Amino acid sequence: MARIVQKFGGTSVADLDRIRAVAQRVKAEVDAGNEVAVVVSAMSGTTNQLVEWSREIGPVHDAREYDVVVSTGEQVTVGLLAIALQNIGIDARSWLGWQIALHTNDVHGSARIESIDTDKLDERLSSGQVAVVAGFQGIGPDGRISTLGRGGSDTSAVALAAALNADRCDIYTDVDGVYTTDPRMMPKARKLERITFEEMLEMASAGAKVLETRSVAMAMRYDVNLQVLSSFSDQPGTLVVNEEQNMEQQKISGIAYSRDEAKITLVGLPDRPGIAAYIFGVLADNHINVDMIVQSASADKTQTDITFSLGSLDVEKAIGVLKAEEQKLEYKDIVGDVDVAKISIIGTAMRTQPGIAKTMFSVLAEKGINLHVISTSEIKISVLVDTNYTELAVRSLHDAFQLDEA
Amino acid sequence: MARIVQKFGGTSVADLDRIRAVAQRVKAEVDAGNEVAVVVSAMSGTTNQLVEWSREIGPVHDAREYDVVVSTGEQVTVGLLAIALQNIGIDARSWLGWQIALHTNDVHGSARIESIDTDKLDERLSSGQVAVVAGFQGIGPDGRISTLGRGGSDTSAVALAAALNADRCDIYTDVDGVYTTDPRMMPKARKLERITFEEMLEMASAGAKVLETRSVAMAMRYDVNLQVLSSFSDQPGTLVVNEEQNMEQQKISGIAYSRDEAKITLVGLPDRPGIAAYIFGVLADNHINVDMIVQSASADKTQTDITFSLGSLDVEKAIGVLKAEEQKLEYKDIVGDVDVAKISIIGTAMRTQPGIAKTMFSVLAEKGINLHVISTSEIKISVLVDTNYTELAVRSLHDAFQLDEA
Repeated sequence: MARIVQKFGGTSVADLDRIRAVAQRVKAEVDAGNEVAVVVSAMSGTTNQLVEWSREIGPVHDAREYDVVVSTGEQVTVGLLAIALQNIGIDARSWLGWQIALHTNDVHGSARIESIDTDKLDERLSSGQVAVVAGFQGIGPDGRISTLGRGGSDTSAVALAAALNADRCDIYTDVDGVYTTDPRMMPKARKLERITFEEMLEMASAGAKVLETRSVAMAMRYDVNLQVLSSFSDQPGTLVVNEEQNMEQQKISGIAYSRDEAKITLVGLPDRPGIAAYIFGVLADNHINVDMIVQSASADKTQTDITFSLGSLDVEKAIGVLKAEEQKLEYKDIVGDVDVAKISIIGTAMRTQPGIAKTMFSVLAEKGINLHVISTSEIKISVLVDTNYTELAVRSLHDAFQLDEA
Repeated sequence: MARIVQKFGGTSVADLDRIRAVAQRVKAEVDAGNEVAVVVSAMSGTTNQLVEWSREIGPVHDAREYDVVVSTGEQVTVGLLAIALQNIGIDARSWLGWQIALHTNDVHGSARIESIDTDKLDERLSSGQVAVVAGFQGIGPDGRISTLGRGGSDTSAVALAAALNADRCDIYTDVDGVYTTDPRMMPKARKLERITFEEMLEMASAGAKVLETRSVAMAMRYDVNLQVLSSFSDQPGTLVVNEEQNMEQQKISGIAYSRDEAKITLVGLPDRPGIAAYIFGVLADNHINVDMIVQSASADKTQTDITFSLGSLDVEKAIGVLKAEEQKLEYKDIVGDVDVAKISIIGTAMRTQPGIAKTMFSVLAEKGINLHVISTSEIKISVLVDTNYTELAVRSLHDAFQLDEA
């Protein structure tokens, strides 16, 4: 007997038939003698509608009321799934965030989980009852409903798996695992049997949409056995594991890309100490996340250019912020470019195998792809290229690193 | 300064524009210096959709899960209305049933209110904050969400007005008050300035749909000043008041009708003591509500016929139940008829003015309308007629009692 947390996303519970199909998947685990907690999202489309209403009703945005509205999506799904389970003879009941209780901080709209009371759930699971848990929601210190931000249901599931000491956390989604790269971009992309937490984390933050960064980080921290699999097939999925459990020894594990990138260059800054700290301090104060940064000094070392990348939605705001500082910064020009994409290769093998960066840059150079910015971490190399070259870059790298071969 | 509870039904909050219009009505009371609690229903259509899903997902019906699903409709509205109010400068926050808390019994799906904690609401109202309260919902003794049954938002509003010692409870709806009869049936129908609780109660239970019976009974019990008015006009509505406050001295106040009626006749029952008690005991055990009953003995007093009326949806079930008792009851025949309507005249003046029944029966007889069953209470006379005669009966009685004249 194992204790399992299953999580089903919006497309997996999109209508009554799909909810019934989810009930069958839960039943399969129960019939196998397992204790099951199921975390569900809102029926797909619902959350978008609720978010839209909350924004449309007026420009003043009270995140506490926003949470009251948007948390109803998951509430509908848990009730319906509990009924669907009862209808196939499975003892089940729904749990809302405040009923569990799943405690969060008071940052409504994007709250962080602080603790989960497990007494009641433990007791029910042990008695054989399936717990149907509303994802994405909790209760704040003010006794009001909080939500965890978009994709928060993955985080709910992992946090619950950690709190309940679950043997496994299965994340059911509309793809059947983690691929070497996006199969829509590269038909030869191959599903990975295993991937390490670190790689998954880098893949997620580099643009792969299969799992939320937060949930992977939490799984890593609490050592939750994570599996990504499809709710529409019976194929085995991808296991996200500790590095020691990963037997695949590819040079790299995957290639991620993101087109929602932009870069800003500050041209002709006076090259004096503290100027970079000042720039990125101002941007941080304005809640603008900066990703990659390069600085290049002029030949005479009196001037420097700073280029950084950021989400394309933040470009206008960032330029506005920096223009307001023009007198202080004394730059000659500021140039924004939203026509860039980030290509990243990820793999823990980089730590021990030299030459991977060289291979990457050579392959891209051979194809005539210009690199605007380069950024490396221990297990990832990211480059910024013109958006038009995204597909060429992904495919060339996938071939060069022979990712289609297991 | 007064304390006011306002209640807005589903059509009054059907979309964002209407929710904004409701916010303006709330603001008007706040600007007049009043403390305001607003009770809202789900956006129209929402509850039906949620109910349908809950029923469609499977035949096993867990009312606790049903409540989880259907209570989300009101939750969406309170969040949106709170935001709409904040956007026009009104301090407001939403309250869900479990947050107040509004305690109910454990009869999920049609729970009864047992008590309302008013400490928190009292404090907020006194500080000038508008309380936006989700109607129709509470929390059961099991700590789970309960709902009050259809039309429960009226009951929520009246209960809240009683608990908060409100000076007035304004029920906003899609008609602008209580009429002498349904204006769609009788163009000469006249809006009443005042009506007594007892009359309103009889009107509601006789088929007038403007207010739920439960909410009127509760208003009467706790002496809540009730007003029915339109959210789509600025006309004054109808006040529902104590008898001593009612200055209008019409013979009767209104005419109600209901077409959802049926009658069942048991022919040739042995005329022995206790047989009626047995029949209606069996029906009650099967949760079938019986309305009017007539019994007529045969000339030789060995046999009797019993006719009773009931909701047309219950006819088949009732006949099934009585057929199962055929051996015990020894009736000769059982006849059901769904083609009947109930016409009722209502007025507290009946208590003191004789001859009203005579007028009613004469008017109907003159028009050639046959009466199947007659039933009277202190302030109401109801008759069962063929459905085809509904309009003729209502109009003739409205004219005869000169209800179009104030």
